[in-house]
Amino acid sequence: MADLARTGLCSFGKPVFVLALRRLREKGDDEPMNVRSSSEVDNPTSKVLRFGADQPLKLLAGIDLAPFQIAYQTYGELNAARSNAILVCHALTGDQHVANPNPVTGKSGWWETIIGPGKIVDTDRFFVICSNVIGGCLGSTGPASLNPATGKPYGLDLPVITIRDMVRAQAMLVDHFGIDRLLAVIGGSMGGMQVLEWAASYPERVFSAMPIATGARHTSQNIAFHEVGRQAIMADPDWSAGRYIEAGKRPEKGLAVARMAAHITYLSEAALHRKFGRNLQDRESLTFGFDADFQIESYLRHQGMSFVDRFDANSYLYMTRAMDYFDLAADHGGRLADAFAGTDTRFCLVSFTSDWLFPTAESRQVVHALNAAGASVSFVEIETDRGHDAFLLDEPEFFDAMRGFLGAVARDRGLGQ
Amino acid sequence: MADLARTGLCSFGKPVFVLALRRLREKGDDEPMNVRSSSEVDNPTSKVLRFGADQPLKLLAGIDLAPFQIAYQTYGELNAARSNAILVCHALTGDQHVANPNPVTGKSGWWETIIGPGKIVDTDRFFVICSNVIGGCLGSTGPASLNPATGKPYGLDLPVITIRDMVRAQAMLVDHFGIDRLLAVIGGSMGGMQVLEWAASYPERVFSAMPIATGARHTSQNIAFHEVGRQAIMADPDWSAGRYIEAGKRPEKGLAVARMAAHITYLSEAALHRKFGRNLQDRESLTFGFDADFQIESYLRHQGMSFVDRFDANSYLYMTRAMDYFDLAADHGGRLADAFAGTDTRFCLVSFTSDWLFPTAESRQVVHALNAAGASVSFVEIETDRGHDAFLLDEPEFFDAMRGFLGAVARDRGLGQ
Repeated sequence: MADLARTGLCSFGKPVFVLALRRLREKGDDEPMNVRSSSEVDNPTSKVLRFGADQPLKLLAGIDLAPFQIAYQTYGELNAARSNAILVCHALTGDQHVANPNPVTGKSGWWETIIGPGKIVDTDRFFVICSNVIGGCLGSTGPASLNPATGKPYGLDLPVITIRDMVRAQAMLVDHFGIDRLLAVIGGSMGGMQVLEWAASYPERVFSAMPIATGARHTSQNIAFHEVGRQAIMADPDWSAGRYIEAGKRPEKGLAVARMAAHITYLSEAALHRKFGRNLQDRESLTFGFDADFQIESYLRHQGMSFVDRFDANSYLYMTRAMDYFDLAADHGGRLADAFAGTDTRFCLVSFTSDWLFPTAESRQVVHALNAAGASVSFVEIETDRGHDAFLLDEPEFFDAMRGFLGAVARDRGLGQ
Repeated sequence: MADLARTGLCSFGKPVFVLALRRLREKGDDEPMNVRSSSEVDNPTSKVLRFGADQPLKLLAGIDLAPFQIAYQTYGELNAARSNAILVCHALTGDQHVANPNPVTGKSGWWETIIGPGKIVDTDRFFVICSNVIGGCLGSTGPASLNPATGKPYGLDLPVITIRDMVRAQAMLVDHFGIDRLLAVIGGSMGGMQVLEWAASYPERVFSAMPIATGARHTSQNIAFHEVGRQAIMADPDWSAGRYIEAGKRPEKGLAVARMAAHITYLSEAALHRKFGRNLQDRESLTFGFDADFQIESYLRHQGMSFVDRFDANSYLYMTRAMDYFDLAADHGGRLADAFAGTDTRFCLVSFTSDWLFPTAESRQVVHALNAAGASVSFVEIETDRGHDAFLLDEPEFFDAMRGFLGAVARDRGLGQ
């Protein structure tokens, strides 16, 4: 019975943050890269755009971040009129590797099902840009990046990053390509928050916007779940007050617990019941112990374990905080419609019936605000039991909606059929 | 900015598991007590019933637990016919101090609103029994109790405890009072599971049963949340593989995180929105840091912090496991109705509309099974936005339902008006 003491995360072995060296086929030539770098953080396998001390990112926290860098991927070709660019915004734990193998995990890009040649977001036709958000850990400046003032990783010395800061940095990347107006800005969850922020901050630069499974603010319950995750990370002594990189440690257990808690919110109760129910994991009967008797336990442990291999704990703190701080109405005098006053952007919002993290009601509030602002808006609620994660999965109705919307805005923008 | 590193649970100070010495006025004389004991675990301020090696508790794990003890409280007087006894079963983190000041927290009993002289469960009329469950930490044998085989606390050497084990121990306590048949067995959440188990295991001993905000099994999502809590505890190095008492430590941070995650599930999104929304805590604007900017964060931290003062971490592992293992249908050949075949017990089930931990659908499944078994059953769904915790709160409609049901069964049992 004493063996029970060795169960759980304690038996995870030694997952390490994989610092992959693989270079992508699409590696850009516009930036010199140190291929001997041991880290995706400072010298990622992505293309990187670096801004010097003279081009700071003006953060909402009131601080100028400089120097800083943006790691990004592109797919397809920008046309001569620079009118076929689609910006994809990634979610909390996503990254810029939207349609190519991920250099850290080796898995397919997180939206490779819909982005690529001949796919819904057709890269034979559109120029797709996706950048790692500021505060992230895959090459854009984040808490694991070196702080030039100290020569050490920023840790929590990096100012808190907001959704607006992420978007402002993306706008500087879009400037770099000489693109005045994006054909579309697309994203789900935290990515959808960025889409809404783009539409509010740069209406003239957004021809169309597709915020998916998102809301114009983070709810109390959502903040609560994020706070649990942050506390789990900070409770891990290996977090070392945020200075774990210098200490040669990683708060793996805390980060895994944070991921497990969050992961429950990405799925619906119905999906969990359908996938796992009360099924036992590789055993005939209950073991009367604390090992993973149930498949759902085993699944969650795996989710936690694999996450710490690919994500930085401090970045997790920053990403969750950015979402918590997001409140588009509050940023516009308390009236959400004012965030979109006079907009010419065409909107298509998508929600999923079983998403309880960003339920349909949150999308509907945005739709009402857009209606009040006289905007062009369509809204699709997709019937599914797969919860919040549905936006990353194979959902034919969702795909149809995206195909239809992008086709229409491309025609309206004069890009032909 | 480096100050941020000192935020969060790390700044909780030094909460300790309060080992109160206060004795209750109602202290029983049937058992000698060591008032110099430093612990509610082995020598609680409650009455205690001790069973020797010749009276083991036969656990579902296939092990005889002996010796063992049950700590309990009673209120009111048992009548001569021994027909006025009501057994109250407590929830996951509840205890036997249902209607008296809690010796650990000093707060009112957890159901003092409804139990007492002249109250809904009128102790001028009924004899109320409530015992700490086996596996608990307030005086009944649990993981913090001394293992007579080693002279050390059980820790995880205590076999896994099930709902049926808890109920079997309660039956031995009820035997002690010479009570053949309980007028009613009442409880919410994990307490409701015990009520259902009582009705299934001892139908002839349960005149009426009131399972509240509960279900006949734990769902996949519920198991998932419990697993997060267990992993948070086990990830805390102070957990010391379950041997923290000998090590002079306590996994306070892990237990606090577990409590925070669980606490979210006890409230509804609507209640969180109403109570906290995105309100800031003692500040005018966002601080752009990781301190508790939002009231919901501050509230959750407080919930975590105060919990570790009153609860044992290993007990939390055992309680959650007991709930996860509960599956009354599986225990009866896969057909829930068979758990209640031929029952004469009168049932009243209660659910709350905004309870997403034990949604109404779970109660309805039990109702359908009872109907299939030809049982006498009534079912009340209470309209409220307070979530699972509603069963512990001032809910007039719920109170009315309980008053009406108890009044009716008391009359039917010949106890007069």
